[in-house]
Amino acid sequence: MKNVERTRVAVVGASGYTGEELVRLLLRHPRAELTAVTSRQLAGKSLSEVFPRVAHHATAQTLQFTDAAPAKIADQADIVFLALPHGVAVDFAGPLLQAGARVIDLSADFRIRSPETYREFYAHEHRAPDLLPAAVYGLPEIYREQICAARLVACPGCYPTSILLPMIPLLRERLVEPGSIIANSLSGVSGAGRKAEVDYLFVECNESARAYGVPKHRHLAEIEQELSIAAGKSVAVQFTPHLIPVNRGILTTIYAAPTSELRSAESGVEFAERIEAALRAAYADEPFVRLLGGKVLPDTKNVVGSNFIEIAWRLDSRTGRLIVMSAEDNILKGASGQAIQCFNIMSGYAESEGLI
Amino acid sequence: MKNVERTRVAVVGASGYTGEELVRLLLRHPRAELTAVTSRQLAGKSLSEVFPRVAHHATAQTLQFTDAAPAKIADQADIVFLALPHGVAVDFAGPLLQAGARVIDLSADFRIRSPETYREFYAHEHRAPDLLPAAVYGLPEIYREQICAARLVACPGCYPTSILLPMIPLLRERLVEPGSIIANSLSGVSGAGRKAEVDYLFVECNESARAYGVPKHRHLAEIEQELSIAAGKSVAVQFTPHLIPVNRGILTTIYAAPTSELRSAESGVEFAERIEAALRAAYADEPFVRLLGGKVLPDTKNVVGSNFIEIAWRLDSRTGRLIVMSAEDNILKGASGQAIQCFNIMSGYAESEGLI
Amino acid sequence: MKNVERTRVAVVGASGYTGEELVRLLLRHPRAELTAVTSRQLAGKSLSEVFPRVAHHATAQTLQFTDAAPAKIADQADIVFLALPHGVAVDFAGPLLQAGARVIDLSADFRIRSPETYREFYAHEHRAPDLLPAAVYGLPEIYREQICAARLVACPGCYPTSILLPMIPLLRERLVEPGSIIANSLSGVSGAGRKAEVDYLFVECNESARAYGVPKHRHLAEIEQELSIAAGKSVAVQFTPHLIPVNRGILTTIYAAPTSELRSAESGVEFAERIEAALRAAYADEPFVRLLGGKVLPDTKNVVGSNFIEIAWRLDSRTGRLIVMSAEDNILKGASGQAIQCFNIMSGYAESEGLI
Amino acid sequence: MKNVERTRVAVVGASGYTGEELVRLLLRHPRAELTAVTSRQLAGKSLSEVFPRVAHHATAQTLQFTDAAPAKIADQADIVFLALPHGVAVDFAGPLLQAGARVIDLSADFRIRSPETYREFYAHEHRAPDLLPAAVYGLPEIYREQICAARLVACPGCYPTSILLPMIPLLRERLVEPGSIIANSLSGVSGAGRKAEVDYLFVECNESARAYGVPKHRHLAEIEQELSIAAGKSVAVQFTPHLIPVNRGILTTIYAAPTSELRSAESGVEFAERIEAALRAAYADEPFVRLLGGKVLPDTKNVVGSNFIEIAWRLDSRTGRLIVMSAEDNILKGASGQAIQCFNIMSGYAESEGLI
Repeated sequence: MKNVERTRVAVVGASGYTGEELVRLLLRHPRAELTAVTSRQLAGKSLSEVFPRVAHHATAQTLQFTDAAPAKIADQADIVFLALPHGVAVDFAGPLLQAGARVIDLSADFRIRSPETYREFYAHEHRAPDLLPAAVYGLPEIYREQICAARLVACPGCYPTSILLPMIPLLRERLVEPGSIIANSLSGVSGAGRKAEVDYLFVECNESARAYGVPKHRHLAEIEQELSIAAGKSVAVQFTPHLIPVNRGILTTIYAAPTSELRSAESGVEFAERIEAALRAAYADEPFVRLLGGKVLPDTKNVVGSNFIEIAWRLDSRTGRLIVMSAEDNILKGASGQAIQCFNIMSGYAESEGLI
Repeated sequence: MKNVERTRVAVVGASGYTGEELVRLLLRHPRAELTAVTSRQLAGKSLSEVFPRVAHHATAQTLQFTDAAPAKIADQADIVFLALPHGVAVDFAGPLLQAGARVIDLSADFRIRSPETYREFYAHEHRAPDLLPAAVYGLPEIYREQICAARLVACPGCYPTSILLPMIPLLRERLVEPGSIIANSLSGVSGAGRKAEVDYLFVECNESARAYGVPKHRHLAEIEQELSIAAGKSVAVQFTPHLIPVNRGILTTIYAAPTSELRSAESGVEFAERIEAALRAAYADEPFVRLLGGKVLPDTKNVVGSNFIEIAWRLDSRTGRLIVMSAEDNILKGASGQAIQCFNIMSGYAESEGLI
Repeated sequence: MKNVERTRVAVVGASGYTGEELVRLLLRHPRAELTAVTSRQLAGKSLSEVFPRVAHHATAQTLQFTDAAPAKIADQADIVFLALPHGVAVDFAGPLLQAGARVIDLSADFRIRSPETYREFYAHEHRAPDLLPAAVYGLPEIYREQICAARLVACPGCYPTSILLPMIPLLRERLVEPGSIIANSLSGVSGAGRKAEVDYLFVECNESARAYGVPKHRHLAEIEQELSIAAGKSVAVQFTPHLIPVNRGILTTIYAAPTSELRSAESGVEFAERIEAALRAAYADEPFVRLLGGKVLPDTKNVVGSNFIEIAWRLDSRTGRLIVMSAEDNILKGASGQAIQCFNIMSGYAESEGLI
Repeated sequence: MKNVERTRVAVVGASGYTGEELVRLLLRHPRAELTAVTSRQLAGKSLSEVFPRVAHHATAQTLQFTDAAPAKIADQADIVFLALPHGVAVDFAGPLLQAGARVIDLSADFRIRSPETYREFYAHEHRAPDLLPAAVYGLPEIYREQICAARLVACPGCYPTSILLPMIPLLRERLVEPGSIIANSLSGVSGAGRKAEVDYLFVECNESARAYGVPKHRHLAEIEQELSIAAGKSVAVQFTPHLIPVNRGILTTIYAAPTSELRSAESGVEFAERIEAALRAAYADEPFVRLLGGKVLPDTKNVVGSNFIEIAWRLDSRTGRLIVMSAEDNILKGASGQAIQCFNIMSGYAESEGLI
């Protein structure tokens, strides 16, 4: 594979779980050349020292974390991944773009089109609102064409991915009542990041299940933004995340009522057919969406470690409601895997390159 | 404590998780004398051999499992606990009652008042419909007086307990729209019983999260029965159980809309006040219900190993919906602990005797 | 139980896992009256706020954490439990003793009789060496009489308890070669305390197994001290602790060779008989030691949540070695439960009071 | 990659965890073409139905499980993997070899050179002793050349791999006393296979740690066979496996004394240097052995999901003993990954092909 042309890439803020996973994926990606990784706290250490799992890659032995400035990074890489906390990424994106790099941001900083909504959910002013119009929401199944040419991609949050992929086709087809959507999500603890907080200690999470962020989790901002676009009108969503004792995986169960024209008893069959048709039309050819059909239900253990999302649905004839379920790996399809998918699209590579 | 008068008790079908827990609770109960335990497969073995955790009780050393007939058991015990699969318990209850014993049944066999509903959900005819009118649903916080005098108590299912306790007061007060109730539950694997099935192997459950029984789980029969009584009209509920990798614990998140008169913007505050008032009025003096107030949310780790249920609620001003959460130990408040609570009531003991 | 006379107790440094467990055990202890709990960081909060699991106790509603000085605490309590880090407890013990309180210390500060050994293993000078001669090592099965009258009890470490109880009788009877002892221990993560460190995050511990503290863990100091006393000569032990993903429990597997006179092939049967006899003689009447005999092996799940230790052994006829296994709850028999056992002995109560 | 020549492979008995992993690895292997999978119980089902994780491979959609006879399988494949229980594989190997296929057996049937030893440990006569002389023990780091030309490869057991790789170089160099070796292993539950037994239910394994197979586990047969070869004399090993609540991973901690000539105090430094030198000489260039040096210790989470084994060692100057630790994925380096490594060697491919 020596003669394949590779795209030079850098990962900024590579000390957390998404950063580590980006590094792992990029090291084994046949078309990527990892040229820089940064982390203030890890500067001077080699990749292999910090992430023993990737120590067998020659690059991991030689490449050291730096605390490089954006201009320097843009010199070293054509595409730069930002795996920084929200509110920090925003300050790196501008200089990197200006220096000529393309940016794939995994934080929330460029996901929200409206600076007002950003402020409402993130409790501070957006510091680079001028960059927002150019940012593309990095959900490949929905925005593939825009991602292709984008210079700034804002990768979706882990929960939003698990809700948007199953629901966008149904809203676009006007099959479900937007205001009826209730999303109940379960997440593994890696979603909280590699933060030394008592709440995420093993003993506090193991043998525990709890809701959090009730009723207004930050991810609602992007969930409602994208569902509103799909529905053609403003949508308010009910969303409750829960923490369960697994390392990885998000399982989301969504409840929705059919739109009024589909609600009559006689239209039950039609409703079911149209749900299936809408999902098939949207995803039958997608490389990372697995529609499960009528026999099995999503299970996080079938997607963890992969970039796939599983989707299934059932109609409850007793209540008339639709139940849609999805399962994904929160760090892969919900973060770093999806970022690589965007990278492949931006670079003109096969979308599953380095991901299967 | 030697001179305290004790009630003689037996456990029929003591080989599973609820049976084991009943045995453990009864052995340390200051007012119970465990005189018989039955299990076809374990007959001849001592309690201490089968359940090492209770081996320090003198009774556990001497008491052996038998395969005794109901008449024999009724000779030995005043109150008999049935920890049998549904469809099996029904055949023991009649003979035991006839022989003079009082019965606390932990199966589903006597929970459903209507034999037709039983058949719909359990797929076979009820074999003792004549006993149904006398059976009392063993939810102490709701049916305490009837339990007191009951000769046949049908202990609620684990999921129903976690849904009924928070919702009954709200429906009685006509605060939420019955048809809007969506209950999303997470359960530990002990809920599946001690069955040698591949689905419940460690490797299949660990690092996994999945819904099951969608959309018509059997527990819906009793959930809807009891919520309909509370609402004064027939209620259809949306209920989705999920399996998560913990040994014990159920976390239930319930969504409901306010009734139409409480739905206007200006009535938000009133709605909140009435929710809190209804729950306080119902449970402030209950020994095993913990109302959490506005600061913390239920967490199964705070109730596992105890007979408590934690309840909290939040109002979502954006959607107008109420979110109610509860946490319990599925084997204790959801099964064997609640059965002991019923036993205490039936015997005239302090309700928390042997449970704190 | 209102008229039972109770001993007034205090817990100093009650914010960690052992402190929380002490509080839980003391609140339900029929002969203890918890009058004070201290924690600098939690001062002003009520017990029920900090430890939801005990919120149903009336005392938990009213008793608040304070930052009280030793003299004040000694005013409020007859016996004071110190659940402080080592190196901190030492400064509380003296003033408390002087003010008339008896002290049960759960730290390592008074376990090591020799200040030199303390310095070797804990890397600083002992600050109250004058108190060491009066301190009693709080292993009830070995030092019951001394504990009875002790004013300062040093509770054993969690690992030492799991090694000393099985091995002391064998060394006293000169059955195994002291220098041959190799102890391999597995511990749940609660052993690391409630510390916000990345190493103990859920994601870092779940699906992980690792040795640590190799080859010279601090607990060796007390293990060797007590085994040397039992053997009548200086013993050097091989000890390797491992971290496994459970909340609680220590499983220790110990390897030892028979003493030379018992090593011949023909003496295999005698060796086995004498092992069993030594353990039976030592522990048959002990309330918290469970000798398992030849059929089953220790399993942490059978002791977690209790103050019991399970012990079993096997002889390997191929290598001639003895394998001894023990299982305990590291927070109970390995810490707070054992401390309550000492408290009962010091107070003249039944040894299992409040523990079964 | 279309024009790469591929080796046709089949997996016999593909329903368990090692079979599933073989299938997963072979489907993504650039030089393997999976042409047949067999399982009596799954015959007629497609791979994608049974193993949702691999459903995205085109082959998984079309390839169905069969119950084919050896001759038929040998028609379809050049190399056949046997993922059958021991005692069953033996009956497939002969016919497959006779029909011209090469065989990689993952059972224990061809690991033991002596039929007498096989009978001693597996409690039945070996049914194809004539095949034993030709079988090669499939530990690539030790038998690479023999594997290259082998027609029948017997892949090592999971525990043996974790013990043999660290110890063989030390025995070959006569650095440790063979009779002093004590191996203490911890294994994830997948090691027990996908068997519907109560002992391996989630609730029985979670929050549990226990030894088993004490003192004579079957894997001792191959451990002692291979260590004896390395030592040049008969070796009896102490080995204790433990079950811990992780899906995958084996952590082994081994204790050994230096040989007599290296035991003097002054030779401590030399001993350390020679240990390190022996391991470096053996493994510095190995693609799947990671020598950790003096800073970190093996952790299963760093090797799970990979074919790597981590090895570290420490010298205890107090006892004079050597402590060697290793970590591997029991299903990969301990089974299916190692089988693929053998496959690569047998086929003349790069040894890490399809494994990194």
